[in-house]
Amino acid sequence: MSTGRNGTHAVILSTSLKKPSRVVPNRQLEDRLGLRPGLIERMTGIQSRNYLGPGESLQSLAAAACRDAIGKSNLDPTRLDMMIFYTDVPPTRPDDGPSRRTYYEVGPHIQHLLRSQGVDVGCECINIGGSCVAFVSALQIACGLIRAGIKRNVLVVGAADCSSFVSGEDTNLAMTFSDGAAATVLTAGARPGFTDFCCMTDSAGYDAGYFADYAEMRVDRKRVAEFAPRAFEAAFRGLLARTRLEADSLDLVIPHQAGAKIIERGVERCGLPREKVYLSLQADGNTGAPALQIALTHAIEDGRIHDGDLVALIGFGTGWHYGATAFRHHQHPDD
Amino acid sequence: MSTGRNGTHAVILSTSLKKPSRVVPNRQLEDRLGLRPGLIERMTGIQSRNYLGPGESLQSLAAAACRDAIGKSNLDPTRLDMMIFYTDVPPTRPDDGPSRRTYYEVGPHIQHLLRSQGVDVGCECINIGGSCVAFVSALQIACGLIRAGIKRNVLVVGAADCSSFVSGEDTNLAMTFSDGAAATVLTAGARPGFTDFCCMTDSAGYDAGYFADYAEMRVDRKRVAEFAPRAFEAAFRGLLARTRLEADSLDLVIPHQAGAKIIERGVERCGLPREKVYLSLQADGNTGAPALQIALTHAIEDGRIHDGDLVALIGFGTGWHYGATAFRHHQHPDD
Repeated sequence: MSTGRNGTHAVILSTSLKKPSRVVPNRQLEDRLGLRPGLIERMTGIQSRNYLGPGESLQSLAAAACRDAIGKSNLDPTRLDMMIFYTDVPPTRPDDGPSRRTYYEVGPHIQHLLRSQGVDVGCECINIGGSCVAFVSALQIACGLIRAGIKRNVLVVGAADCSSFVSGEDTNLAMTFSDGAAATVLTAGARPGFTDFCCMTDSAGYDAGYFADYAEMRVDRKRVAEFAPRAFEAAFRGLLARTRLEADSLDLVIPHQAGAKIIERGVERCGLPREKVYLSLQADGNTGAPALQIALTHAIEDGRIHDGDLVALIGFGTGWHYGATAFRHHQHPDD
Repeated sequence: MSTGRNGTHAVILSTSLKKPSRVVPNRQLEDRLGLRPGLIERMTGIQSRNYLGPGESLQSLAAAACRDAIGKSNLDPTRLDMMIFYTDVPPTRPDDGPSRRTYYEVGPHIQHLLRSQGVDVGCECINIGGSCVAFVSALQIACGLIRAGIKRNVLVVGAADCSSFVSGEDTNLAMTFSDGAAATVLTAGARPGFTDFCCMTDSAGYDAGYFADYAEMRVDRKRVAEFAPRAFEAAFRGLLARTRLEADSLDLVIPHQAGAKIIERGVERCGLPREKVYLSLQADGNTGAPALQIALTHAIEDGRIHDGDLVALIGFGTGWHYGATAFRHHQHPDD
């Protein structure tokens, strides 16, 4: 395990996830897209997903996840030193409507919402614009600052409203993408938490995913399908090489919830036993950037991660980016 | 000085700045905006600025700054572990034109340009979307990762083409904003480099700056004029408190190049001697997010920073964000 000054480790204090209110089961989506019943699950492994409902926004969802994670952490909110917000969708103010979109910084807006709800967060906020590897990047930043003694308590929050950027024109994107948010509080601890990180970018994929006119998600599906399983493997093997961990020592591997087939191919390439790989996309879909953080939160809440377990997180996305880390889970990190 | 594991410090290895080719002196801008001759300099302290010329883009400018900084660093480009790209303007692909803008990740595109120019950079790229404090935020991330032993060589690159988002409708913005890019290579060193950081966000200003329809910069000038000098002071005093440095021990203070009046008020509030405060906005204008990094590079290139000097960097911007750090400059950081 890699440690910081004075043997400081970065550990997870609490996690939370928020799904928006509008449940969209496959049958409803298949009707809308004119697809045969059963096709979506066969193609993606997804059974249902949630979209933003009336009065909800990426910002409100993210703030709700933060409020909950801060509450569970038992930290006084004034003791938070930093909020790292990340997303992969173009930042848009909730009240502007599709005819007049606004580019601005979402992190301070989330802080503003928290404060207006009586959660006294006054810390530095930064915004990461990334693809589906962004949770691993954000964790890496948090761990660096905590181990270096620059920050002590860091809130990482990811959110995306992919459904707002998928018109249905591209059936495959409409089958796959959905909305969600998750928040994680990290703190400095004496016991081993996060290991080292392996994060890489191969810019050959810089144009494989984008938002045309800031409004319509476009993904070069053929290139992504070819890249993603290789990236899964490269991130996984890179992590083992950097940390000198044995694959057998991992209790659970949580990949970015890209789709069942991509994950299957990645798992195969790594020679991982299926029962060690965690999937939550059945009920969530692929929420884009926050999908990995949402899956991690499900795994903790569902009791799939036990005290002392060693858990690997594998991210990959357009860019091309791939990145991985692992952490030792503590049910009571304060002990 | 704050150090990392094994006493590791983060030090500056090289810096570079790129101004685009189209020189726009005040007279030309005053003509276009229908302003009396001399007004712009009296209001802002700016005499001239540069805009993107034919064939230039934020991306090409950023890549040129990176190539130059990497060359000066004498590092083999394959030894770079990370590129942190930041900007405050909406990411737009250079070839799309104003009628069809595209949101995507700029960092990997810069890596792609470098590779196509034979600069063998294959490291992780992350994208920070921030305001005029973003250079300090990016330095903080780099220093955290270097001190924690997660990364060794980090390239920080900031760029903005503000002129593409200022139509002239708001005369004050048109007088102030311009285009530019800068790149800095940081590395792990044994001698003291960067001190600790003081970075804060007060979300009351989350809506004080934004880009309407991703196309038109809007700034609430009255609120910014009120906030900026206070933020300058808060960042400066916060840095002194966190690092236990005396103001007298600083050889040079480089503030975000917001405008001569804002800086003057900030300097007054801090009780700083004028000759210790560095200004480069006369010939550059306010280039937005990269303005502080551009000013730092000018100060080094112009010989205003000597071997062993202690230099403070003060950032502030809409959000509200403010942040500061200091570093000990080494002419030969490898010694």
